Amino acid sequence: MSWSESGESQCPIARCLAVVGDRWTMLIMRELFFGNRRFDGLLAQTGMSPHLLSTRLKRLEADGVLARNAYQQKPPRHEYVLTDSGQDLYPVLMTLAGWGRKWGGLDDSTPALRVTHRACGHEVDTGLACLACGEAFTRADVETTFSDNFVAERNERMAAFQAAKKQAAGDA
Amino acid sequence: MSWSESGESQCPIARCLAVVGDRWTMLIMRELFFGNRRFDGLLAQTGMSPHLLSTRLKRLEADGVLARNAYQQKPPRHEYVLTDSGQDLYPVLMTLAGWGRKWGGLDDSTPALRVTHRACGHEVDTGLACLACGEAFTRADVETTFSDNFVAERNERMAAFQAAKKQAAGDA
Repeated sequence: MSWSESGESQCPIARCLAVVGDRWTMLIMRELFFGNRRFDGLLAQTGMSPHLLSTRLKRLEADGVLARNAYQQKPPRHEYVLTDSGQDLYPVLMTLAGWGRKWGGLDDSTPALRVTHRACGHEVDTGLACLACGEAFTRADVETTFSDNFVAERNERMAAFQAAKKQAAGDA
Repeated sequence: MSWSESGESQCPIARCLAVVGDRWTMLIMRELFFGNRRFDGLLAQTGMSPHLLSTRLKRLEADGVLARNAYQQKPPRHEYVLTDSGQDLYPVLMTLAGWGRKWGGLDDSTPALRVTHRACGHEVDTGLACLACGEAFTRADVETTFSDNFVAERNERMAAFQAAKKQAAGDA
């Protein structure tokens, strides 16, 4: 397992991807947000095999984003519910949806998901908000800097890469 | 290839995941947003093999989220730049970063990425904004409904799943 899979990086994006960075996992999370919480329902709507679904659910439970609730004793049956950290993936799914609606080649006259903002009554066109001031922002409105530690992590990776390349060239 | 990989669903989330729904692809996009645009730099910072990186870059180019620019003729060398649809993935990466910072088990005293909102001067705590009214919103502030077509798509999947299950039970 490489650093990017083990979630060892200091990068918060890599950390999130270590938990939900594959299509199947994201589809499971989507279904839980849709209220589809049972194994058969998840199988049907994601198209996963039972083995794959079971593996991913266990991993997501271990990572703390979902929990199992027993809804029946005999035979034992569970449903899967989002924990607080799972609920916090909502913005990720909303931004995926926003991109998909704009760039996914869909007929926009009847969007599959209609998200209406109760406060203004309009259909939501999803953007980012700065929660410090409550205002919408785009990439042009912010300044992004790396911490010294993250710069060091990146420099280390580049040095290791160059050393391996030099080694390979010497061996050839 | 199943429906979820081919981007055939009407669901905008599935459509987006069909393009950027794996960890490697997201890491490539992250690097391009960081300004790391060359093949060796991408290799070093993602930890991908040359073959895997090359495959993913070709796919992303075919999907229109990045383009290749020649920066040298002899030998030919390219750098990879975000197209408009690629730029529009910025909110996805920002929400991944927001989740990772909160739930990724990182030391929050020196965040790897510091994103400062120029307008208010504060570090950005990323939320969602309704671009219709410009206000920040959460899941509790919106009403989500499915289109009739999407309901039909989901019902079809459930019916196909149940038919297959019944068939398997009959065969057993």
